[in-house]
Amino acid sequence: MEKFKILEIKANIFEDNKKEADILRDELKENKTFLLNLMSSPGSGKTTTLRRTIASLKDEYRIGIMEADIDSDVDAKTIEETGAKVIQLHTGGMCHLDCSMTRQGLEGLGTKDLDLVVLENIGNLVCPAEFDTGATKNAMILSVPEGDDKPLKYPLMFQICDALLINKIDVLPYFDFDIEECTKRAKRLNPNIKVFPVSSRTGEGFDAWLNWLREEANKNVR
Amino acid sequence: MEKFKILEIKANIFEDNKKEADILRDELKENKTFLLNLMSSPGSGKTTTLRRTIASLKDEYRIGIMEADIDSDVDAKTIEETGAKVIQLHTGGMCHLDCSMTRQGLEGLGTKDLDLVVLENIGNLVCPAEFDTGATKNAMILSVPEGDDKPLKYPLMFQICDALLINKIDVLPYFDFDIEECTKRAKRLNPNIKVFPVSSRTGEGFDAWLNWLREEANKNVR
Repeated sequence: MEKFKILEIKANIFEDNKKEADILRDELKENKTFLLNLMSSPGSGKTTTLRRTIASLKDEYRIGIMEADIDSDVDAKTIEETGAKVIQLHTGGMCHLDCSMTRQGLEGLGTKDLDLVVLENIGNLVCPAEFDTGATKNAMILSVPEGDDKPLKYPLMFQICDALLINKIDVLPYFDFDIEECTKRAKRLNPNIKVFPVSSRTGEGFDAWLNWLREEANKNVR
Repeated sequence: MEKFKILEIKANIFEDNKKEADILRDELKENKTFLLNLMSSPGSGKTTTLRRTIASLKDEYRIGIMEADIDSDVDAKTIEETGAKVIQLHTGGMCHLDCSMTRQGLEGLGTKDLDLVVLENIGNLVCPAEFDTGATKNAMILSVPEGDDKPLKYPLMFQICDALLINKIDVLPYFDFDIEECTKRAKRLNPNIKVFPVSSRTGEGFDAWLNWLREEANKNVR
């Protein structure tokens, strides 16, 4: 029997989602909560990355996870095993979360006893990039099997993210993926983006990602 | 210098997209054109699959390809090398194609001298499933690195597709992917879905896919 809640969240289009997002971001800072919005294609390793991140940081931060999915709760079950506080958000077919949906999720999760909250957004490189969730920072995962041309094809996602994890580097020998070229393409769209080649399966490259996350989280939490 | 056109298509929400789609499907049949709507996540191998499909069938059918992308024309360039007739559709940020956008694409491509047209839809497992493009048949690609749990998380896509290609089976040894389990999950959602494990890189399993495509295309074309 799972202990996590399942919440049906509803779109509630604000006239100005961006303005609402800025308000939420300020509130989070005031309440000493850091919210990371984690985005990617389906199957790039968001949940595996989260599991390793939680395992590495759970003694330093009180961590909560919002698992957004159109349907199912397979990811919430996996995350619950880590001991983090989890809520499953069902978007009822919606392909992204806006700020009002994120706020409903935060209220459902309860953030009073949490320092670091991660929103695992819907697996989609298109729509989630278009809606500011109000998160403190945005991160995305691109996995090696997806190909190094993705910045060319989904530019907005790379433009709005503060961090890019290039995941599954343990399978680099079996794919035609040029990390340097991919990094160049991402930086051409967004010169400030931080790029972390990692393997969430083996842990390779993970320290640099964790250090970035600590540094950013501490600006709100400490 | 590329020879293909780049067309900026615009959403033109019909009151009843489904009805318009049925009309387009009938017109295509009348004009002896078969239209396949090919969908998947970013990076699952749509373009590589198309290249091999064109190379295998170009002596049997006159083939045209509509490359839908938010931005860029990298795929259209790749496809043009095969000798197929190509048009690049830019959706201006839209995450899917509806029937009116598909019709604009077909008119831009010109289908009078074509038997088999493939729409390479936006890389997205969510939104394209919600809009009937008017295509004769729908196919999707799920690649091994994405994981065998995707039918649980993106059920609508599996429900509306006539064929599922499980691609990149050449890298099965390096991933935890159970083809049998994935097939069961897909068939639970859609008992009629045809499942084709393939490697578009090596050609493994490709004959079964081509035979299905021939059989379906001939219902319109011959």
